[in-house]
Amino acid sequence: MSLLVVGSVAFDAIETPFGKTDKIVGGAASYISIASAYLAGKSNLVAVVGNDFLPTDIATMQKHGVNTEGLQIKQDEKSFFWSGKYRNDMNSRDTLITELNVLGTFDPIIPESYQDCEYLMLGNLAPAVQLTVINRLRKRPKLIVMDTMNFWMDVAWDDLMKTLAAVDVLSINDEEARQLTKEYSLKRAAQKIHAMGPKYVIIKKGEHGALLFGEGKIFSAPALPLEEVFDPTGAGDTFAGGFIGYMASKNSTSFEDMKTAIIYGSTLASFCVEQFGWERLLDLKKDEIQARIQQFNDLTSFSA
Amino acid sequence: MSLLVVGSVAFDAIETPFGKTDKIVGGAASYISIASAYLAGKSNLVAVVGNDFLPTDIATMQKHGVNTEGLQIKQDEKSFFWSGKYRNDMNSRDTLITELNVLGTFDPIIPESYQDCEYLMLGNLAPAVQLTVINRLRKRPKLIVMDTMNFWMDVAWDDLMKTLAAVDVLSINDEEARQLTKEYSLKRAAQKIHAMGPKYVIIKKGEHGALLFGEGKIFSAPALPLEEVFDPTGAGDTFAGGFIGYMASKNSTSFEDMKTAIIYGSTLASFCVEQFGWERLLDLKKDEIQARIQQFNDLTSFSA
Repeated sequence: MSLLVVGSVAFDAIETPFGKTDKIVGGAASYISIASAYLAGKSNLVAVVGNDFLPTDIATMQKHGVNTEGLQIKQDEKSFFWSGKYRNDMNSRDTLITELNVLGTFDPIIPESYQDCEYLMLGNLAPAVQLTVINRLRKRPKLIVMDTMNFWMDVAWDDLMKTLAAVDVLSINDEEARQLTKEYSLKRAAQKIHAMGPKYVIIKKGEHGALLFGEGKIFSAPALPLEEVFDPTGAGDTFAGGFIGYMASKNSTSFEDMKTAIIYGSTLASFCVEQFGWERLLDLKKDEIQARIQQFNDLTSFSA
Repeated sequence: MSLLVVGSVAFDAIETPFGKTDKIVGGAASYISIASAYLAGKSNLVAVVGNDFLPTDIATMQKHGVNTEGLQIKQDEKSFFWSGKYRNDMNSRDTLITELNVLGTFDPIIPESYQDCEYLMLGNLAPAVQLTVINRLRKRPKLIVMDTMNFWMDVAWDDLMKTLAAVDVLSINDEEARQLTKEYSLKRAAQKIHAMGPKYVIIKKGEHGALLFGEGKIFSAPALPLEEVFDPTGAGDTFAGGFIGYMASKNSTSFEDMKTAIIYGSTLASFCVEQFGWERLLDLKKDEIQARIQQFNDLTSFSA
């Protein structure tokens, strides 16, 4: 199987109640590509950065199984930059700065060597760009997963509807699911999203876990109760990376495997929030991951 | 085993986006006693009402396995009355009227025939009254579960601490757990509550399910994703009733059985919200309950 990840690679500057960073690596595809490569062995990246992006950071991606052949480096331009500050409850944040830079004109060029893509993860991006990626793949992948956010519902509704109609799985948070469907009940929201295209809907609920809807079935995964969330940035993308990475590793599109994939995604996300940015993802051990998968088993198992 | 339920029996007038009731039976102990009797076969009730309470409602309790020997009926006084209106998201409500009436001077008299109590559920009441019940039982029950609310944290902190120190399990919602401990992390909140007395802590999260902490272990139960919540009144009390009722039916105080008890509590609560007040609880069938327990199994099971 071949796994393709498309999305932003960026700089973030983050402030939480625990501390503050200068510019560090951020962006949906940074998290997704590394997290998915942990499970699938490798991932192919399509993204764009400016010439301010450090070769050492690209080397870090490569070292973790990310093929960066599709990472465009724009000379004389700057990378996408986001700066945000989390409030004390860590559940809400204020955006301080958004500089689109190279992302404003991103043309997702698919290297020829990526054309065997069977598993496609479209990280949060303009829906039109996401659709371009699908259209540029000569063979439709077995599984297309897409993430999005409320911003695109406000400014690119028609594009969003077209892209939704072309994907298999939508990964979205609860607030966004409600905005997208005007339904408060997440069960009803999922039904409406099915009607927009995606046969499977993942609703991320942060500290409350995630729900998977599809084939008339529902799966509910908890989040691991944590004493401390150090930095939530990238948790949702790491979750998505774990999800697609597990599906690719199993070469599967079944609902049963999606359930386990959600547990793997939740596990990787639970590591992600322990340190700033993607730091914690860079030194993960296989047995650490397995031990936490076991924690999820213990957390949810009961006899009745 | 003998199961004792103490708490309010009251009238409620409820308004939701789906409709409006006149005075109907409400109160924590009404829900708890009926829900627990479904699982334990019977429950002993200690509560107080005025002479406006209808004999037919008492008969309804009795028909569902509730022993009302300990239900005091105060002549020339009125029952506790609460009126509230739910907002459109059904997750928040405004209290319109609270008339304490008989509850203001409630003296919880324990009938002699209740002294064999092994399982005690203290529904939400003034903590001093809850403690009086414990002190009036000559033999300490095997398991004492207590519910409370933020109101008592504001007006009766010292009493609350004394009562907490005397119980085994605290059942509380997430917002209340945070207020009680000044901790945002529910895992840390549970640790602080353990230090106040209860070896086991159940944190109810409404549509996000519930967490059980104890013996260094954690169990996470989902709520059943519902298309519609018709009336959430009594869901938390029905949950508590299912919990204590299951433990009593198993004559157990083990963590493993508490996990299953939480699933039974969640199951009964999922029925409760389908109609106004306790209506849906009055015609529950054993096989309906079992079918929904199976839904919880399907909802949470995965292989990893």
